[in-house]
Amino acid sequence: MPTAVIYHDTPIASTIRDRTDDLTVVAAESKADVRTHLGDADIFVTNPKGWSDDFVKYLSEDDWVQATSIGYTAFPVAELNERGVTFTNAATLHDSVVSEHAFALMFALSRRLGATFDQQREHEWDRGVGADMWHWEGRRMTVFGLGNIGESIARRAQAFGFDVYGVKRTPSIYSGSLTEDRVVSNEDFHDLLPETDLLVLTVPLTDETRHIVNADVLAALPESAAVVNVARGSVIDQNALVAALKDGEITAAGLDVVEEEPLPPTSPLWDREDTVVTPHVGGRSKDFPVRFSRLFLDNYDRWLSGKPLANCIN
Amino acid sequence: MPTAVIYHDTPIASTIRDRTDDLTVVAAESKADVRTHLGDADIFVTNPKGWSDDFVKYLSEDDWVQATSIGYTAFPVAELNERGVTFTNAATLHDSVVSEHAFALMFALSRRLGATFDQQREHEWDRGVGADMWHWEGRRMTVFGLGNIGESIARRAQAFGFDVYGVKRTPSIYSGSLTEDRVVSNEDFHDLLPETDLLVLTVPLTDETRHIVNADVLAALPESAAVVNVARGSVIDQNALVAALKDGEITAAGLDVVEEEPLPPTSPLWDREDTVVTPHVGGRSKDFPVRFSRLFLDNYDRWLSGKPLANCIN
Repeated sequence: MPTAVIYHDTPIASTIRDRTDDLTVVAAESKADVRTHLGDADIFVTNPKGWSDDFVKYLSEDDWVQATSIGYTAFPVAELNERGVTFTNAATLHDSVVSEHAFALMFALSRRLGATFDQQREHEWDRGVGADMWHWEGRRMTVFGLGNIGESIARRAQAFGFDVYGVKRTPSIYSGSLTEDRVVSNEDFHDLLPETDLLVLTVPLTDETRHIVNADVLAALPESAAVVNVARGSVIDQNALVAALKDGEITAAGLDVVEEEPLPPTSPLWDREDTVVTPHVGGRSKDFPVRFSRLFLDNYDRWLSGKPLANCIN
Repeated sequence: MPTAVIYHDTPIASTIRDRTDDLTVVAAESKADVRTHLGDADIFVTNPKGWSDDFVKYLSEDDWVQATSIGYTAFPVAELNERGVTFTNAATLHDSVVSEHAFALMFALSRRLGATFDQQREHEWDRGVGADMWHWEGRRMTVFGLGNIGESIARRAQAFGFDVYGVKRTPSIYSGSLTEDRVVSNEDFHDLLPETDLLVLTVPLTDETRHIVNADVLAALPESAAVVNVARGSVIDQNALVAALKDGEITAAGLDVVEEEPLPPTSPLWDREDTVVTPHVGGRSKDFPVRFSRLFLDNYDRWLSGKPLANCIN
């Protein structure tokens, strides 16, 4: 019977164990624990934080590494592939929950939930807070990155009456809910900025997208614009963002990700009234273990029968 | 030239004055001020708070009262109609913004924004908060009240993958985005409760709907259910709600309206981690004066030419 080593800070191991009799599940408690068991295992399940590059040497041909995350820059995918190790991520699992988190951030900004929570803590009922609220209907949203999450946001945003545009590296391969004239390439991104009320970042972090939202981009947005980031912190030049907020070049920012995580206690982002920070929890959901187990066991069936795996990265 | 007395806590009067030369606009600063000018005026614009029942005696046939709100229980509509005074509300203006506020409340609950804001205030980055987050996709939403706001929420919720049901006094006259089998009458409301994950209240307050969400209703919901109220506070029996939250009969509540407004500082709702309170600001929007002026001036044109007014209540 195949063996899977699972190293994760949620009860994925026990959830999977409860759902199958065809797999030996080893719940690792530490990286040292992983090193002890990985050589004899066939499958390794973890998130980017649970990975160490020396793990590669315990993995051999036909082994399989399943990331619980969408992001996989922490994993040496090329090296794994070279060794014949299959690598899959959990992209499809995260789309809808990250999309919901993006809407949580954009509504936290537009409905001034920071200020209303402050009132709630003080037992204060002051409708004056409403004077700074706005609503999104009819406003222009630009989604940078039309992968699964970006598309999922774009689709929902249209139901809210947003005027939605998207940016994709290769617009010609786009097949989603936006009409062709609304999807532009990275090169034409700048043309959209002066009319963008809300810029939503959902693009993977690559050399090309690092700091793609820089001082020039922020200056080109209207002063009333907001930025929401559920991608990776380094997609934004964070110093430029703080400066743009301070100088009133944009109105608000909702950030689930930042350049240095955890965000240092001294960061000026924490105390800004115009900024909402959540601690990289866009993909989190109470029922993640159950949902992940379902995705993993589907993939496990495919792996057993030699079929191509879902969410395979190579 | 006709005269409008405008008594409101946002700059509606000046916004309207800037947009027309065909109307004398009197900006009243107090109810006493309203009494001074109303007799000579043709139009009165205010919100429920700005109304006093003695104003009726200053109004005469063919005068017109335009509420800036959707709610109009504070206005003696029957008496106004009897005197030949036209009464209109601002229903169409509020639909989308209240709908967005309802989503702000439901995402504030599911993404635990109270807890993330507490972290932000403390400069603390603890991803552990994610363990209590959930996502809505695939869950059942029941919208009680399928007027404009309810329908606007139901439509958006479908884009989020909610399994949406609705309750309407007269299901036979419903013509919206839900299929017929998903719209039930008030009498059948209880049948939906055991499968409802999120109950959204958008029903007008009437004798029939007062405390329609009572202890029985709350007990019939699953323990994992949440309630969001953007209607009127008294649609919920608030003592029963507090008890249900305390006893774990439901999981969370998002309230933009409460039985006694302002919510008294001693209310147990303020300190509940599972409850988000916003101070009746669901309809507020920075661009309200501009949007309202547009709606009002459209109606004013109709009034001048003797056409039926939009949002007329009788």
